[in-house]
Amino acid sequence: MIKVTIWNEFRHEKVEGGVPGQVYPGGLHLALRDGLAAPDLDIRTVTLDDPEQGLPEALLDDTDCLVWWGHKAHGEVEDALVKRILKRVWNGMGLVVLHSGHYSKIFQAVNGTSCRLRWREIGESCRVWCADPSHPVAQGVPETFALEHEEMYGEPFMIAPDGHVVFYSWFKGGETFRSGVAFQRENGRIFYFQPGHETYRSYYDANVLKVIGNAIRWTGTAERRVYPSMKRAEPLEKVD
Amino acid sequence: MIKVTIWNEFRHEKVEGGVPGQVYPGGLHLALRDGLAAPDLDIRTVTLDDPEQGLPEALLDDTDCLVWWGHKAHGEVEDALVKRILKRVWNGMGLVVLHSGHYSKIFQAVNGTSCRLRWREIGESCRVWCADPSHPVAQGVPETFALEHEEMYGEPFMIAPDGHVVFYSWFKGGETFRSGVAFQRENGRIFYFQPGHETYRSYYDANVLKVIGNAIRWTGTAERRVYPSMKRAEPLEKVD
Amino acid sequence: MIKVTIWNEFRHEKVEGGVPGQVYPGGLHLALRDGLAAPDLDIRTVTLDDPEQGLPEALLDDTDCLVWWGHKAHGEVEDALVKRILKRVWNGMGLVVLHSGHYSKIFQAVNGTSCRLRWREIGESCRVWCADPSHPVAQGVPETFALEHEEMYGEPFMIAPDGHVVFYSWFKGGETFRSGVAFQRENGRIFYFQPGHETYRSYYDANVLKVIGNAIRWTGTAERRVYPSMKRAEPLEKVD
Amino acid sequence: MIKVTIWNEFRHEKVEGGVPGQVYPGGLHLALRDGLAAPDLDIRTVTLDDPEQGLPEALLDDTDCLVWWGHKAHGEVEDALVKRILKRVWNGMGLVVLHSGHYSKIFQAVNGTSCRLRWREIGESCRVWCADPSHPVAQGVPETFALEHEEMYGEPFMIAPDGHVVFYSWFKGGETFRSGVAFQRENGRIFYFQPGHETYRSYYDANVLKVIGNAIRWTGTAERRVYPSMKRAEPLEKVD
Repeated sequence: MIKVTIWNEFRHEKVEGGVPGQVYPGGLHLALRDGLAAPDLDIRTVTLDDPEQGLPEALLDDTDCLVWWGHKAHGEVEDALVKRILKRVWNGMGLVVLHSGHYSKIFQAVNGTSCRLRWREIGESCRVWCADPSHPVAQGVPETFALEHEEMYGEPFMIAPDGHVVFYSWFKGGETFRSGVAFQRENGRIFYFQPGHETYRSYYDANVLKVIGNAIRWTGTAERRVYPSMKRAEPLEKVD
Repeated sequence: MIKVTIWNEFRHEKVEGGVPGQVYPGGLHLALRDGLAAPDLDIRTVTLDDPEQGLPEALLDDTDCLVWWGHKAHGEVEDALVKRILKRVWNGMGLVVLHSGHYSKIFQAVNGTSCRLRWREIGESCRVWCADPSHPVAQGVPETFALEHEEMYGEPFMIAPDGHVVFYSWFKGGETFRSGVAFQRENGRIFYFQPGHETYRSYYDANVLKVIGNAIRWTGTAERRVYPSMKRAEPLEKVD
Repeated sequence: MIKVTIWNEFRHEKVEGGVPGQVYPGGLHLALRDGLAAPDLDIRTVTLDDPEQGLPEALLDDTDCLVWWGHKAHGEVEDALVKRILKRVWNGMGLVVLHSGHYSKIFQAVNGTSCRLRWREIGESCRVWCADPSHPVAQGVPETFALEHEEMYGEPFMIAPDGHVVFYSWFKGGETFRSGVAFQRENGRIFYFQPGHETYRSYYDANVLKVIGNAIRWTGTAERRVYPSMKRAEPLEKVD
Repeated sequence: MIKVTIWNEFRHEKVEGGVPGQVYPGGLHLALRDGLAAPDLDIRTVTLDDPEQGLPEALLDDTDCLVWWGHKAHGEVEDALVKRILKRVWNGMGLVVLHSGHYSKIFQAVNGTSCRLRWREIGESCRVWCADPSHPVAQGVPETFALEHEEMYGEPFMIAPDGHVVFYSWFKGGETFRSGVAFQRENGRIFYFQPGHETYRSYYDANVLKVIGNAIRWTGTAERRVYPSMKRAEPLEKVD
């Protein structure tokens, strides 16, 4: 059983009369939770406005994969929390960063870059392409699939150069984007996936959910360990 | 002319009667400054205990390559300063991290990892190997050279997987290490180089100085720019 | 002065009454030669039907950068010639592979893969994006530029995973592609660039020529060397 | 059940009165077969002097992982066989290359490089280090282990830069080496592992066998597929 914690900023959906609240009643974390439900996943949801910003130490310690959706409140997430999350990733906790989470403190910390990109929100169509069908996150995903409406995210995407690109996205308005990218930091695996603007229905799309489910299973099953321990070592060979 | 700022923690060398102060009178930054002196380099030195921890905005803005040596006071370096440095790296400033700087906040931020390693300080001999003679940092450096005494740094070295390894080190006591590693973060180039324990004479060694000089010239000549600007983009193709 | 040899298959353009011969009279190598002309480039052109398939040992030995355009006669290029080229790349000769050259024996040999891709030839528009403005091949190239007509090349593109992507292409019909990719094999640099179908005018486009010129200068200036020599080495440390 | 085919050049061991024949009676493929025996592995052995050089099409088609040991007869392996093997790797067959197989045609073809290295055969001691304990090939392998006698292989090792290094080796005589390296080519996984000189007992060592067994299971379980098919594609979006 993989213990999954979905963290949602949950601010857009609470704006009265707003589109996000209509598309995702109760918050997009609930749509993700319901869409991802499976016998091998134990899914919990938390939000920014929960105590300890939703992620007390005990919950992090009990999490195999943390799913992250944030947007307009990136700056409110405490630096100390970001450090706690990053340390657990180093020790093998999985991290799946969604959509506007590209600009979160935790994803920037993973990359060592700003993770800036081009963007435009006009509801244009988006098409996702699989470039590495052999990757675990691509299993069962068609070579290509379309989303009728998405926010455009385009290159240049300022991420670390070791991101292994599993998916690329094409946008009607002329852009292209590394939209599904796998990273490793110490013992931990990280996956970024672009679809999921708060005003569109991407988190009800079967292909999008398939990718996110795969990403949870791939990142959430790395062996947990602290390694190495940064301590003094005795010589193993004769030094005379 | 490349504007170089050598930042030295400068604490070990001030301990009265200590070995570092005897090996590097006035601080190892002075040995580096003198050993690296060349017509194309304009070298300034600063230390942790200088005002603004040695790196006011104006100096950073006037720096093409920042050389970093720190050890026991990593924790004292302010997070805000680390962010200012990292942002300049993204915009093209070079960064050369030396020896125990592997565990500095700025190098951890570049990697998104702890940068932990094995270590041992018994003055054993070290041998450096060049694995990519075509890299700019390897120009004029012999295939291999030895250092009579160095601190052992050994694998596993917890850095980001995209580090391009130019040099490996062999240690008498049985370890091996990725000792010269090149990174890119946005427009900026970073180079890490292992030799340089405060109690040994590595910064008087011609080969070590050659590598550091090459690293300064390689990282310090990237074009400076802010790119891209993370702003809304108009569609370039008809979206209808 | 960089010695450039442009190798063109030169078969399409000789088909009487064909479009390629009208778009590129005398062969596309002449359009490239004229479009790339510059004081620092000494450009020669050869074709498949020349003696020794255009590339006798002496010419290869006198070449800093080999530019390759082939398509329907990939199979005719002799394996022995491919090996001779590859060996020179290892020793530092640059290689720039254009368009349908993706499926040439030499590019397959560089990658260790088939270099297969999706394709379609309906003259749709193509848009090139720069993803790494700091790369030498991107200097002076705008963030994006369009080509009115090109053959579509799309993902998945079966190349080696270490290709550093400098440019991506967007195609009107819904595909995206890694269209400008840099490789290193031993001491040699290789660059692949997608535009250049024989029936369209891409090799008269200023941006396309700018990229190819940059690629020639980047790949053609690596230091030439044979390294290492695969021979027995004496121990450097005491083995007792 | 993973279908494993161990291919051994099997020439050294047949030299009458030679050390290899004494250390590995009947050929080192038998030592490997016996040492690797496990319920999930169906192991067959073949040698260069078997009909069709040991690898008829039908056997290759029935192989999930090919293990390769060759040395003095690399040149005798037919180019056509190398191409057949490579094509199956692209389609998902695993490949584990051992020791002097670094200089085989198939490993050179995977890398696009010469795979040259430094070497010396004086029976010095070797120490293997694990640099990525989270990799499947490292499971159950100690952080470091020693081999009393091995042939020295040293940097620079001229392989493709995307090799993910899981193990490094240290040699008594002063060298260091990327001794356990993972690659991906299309759908196929490849692992290279250095220990195994024909005159030493490395293939009776429990740690060496553990690594090779892991490598077989990691490379031999990739999904088999031909992808993509390099054929014309219809547009998915309106091209006007």
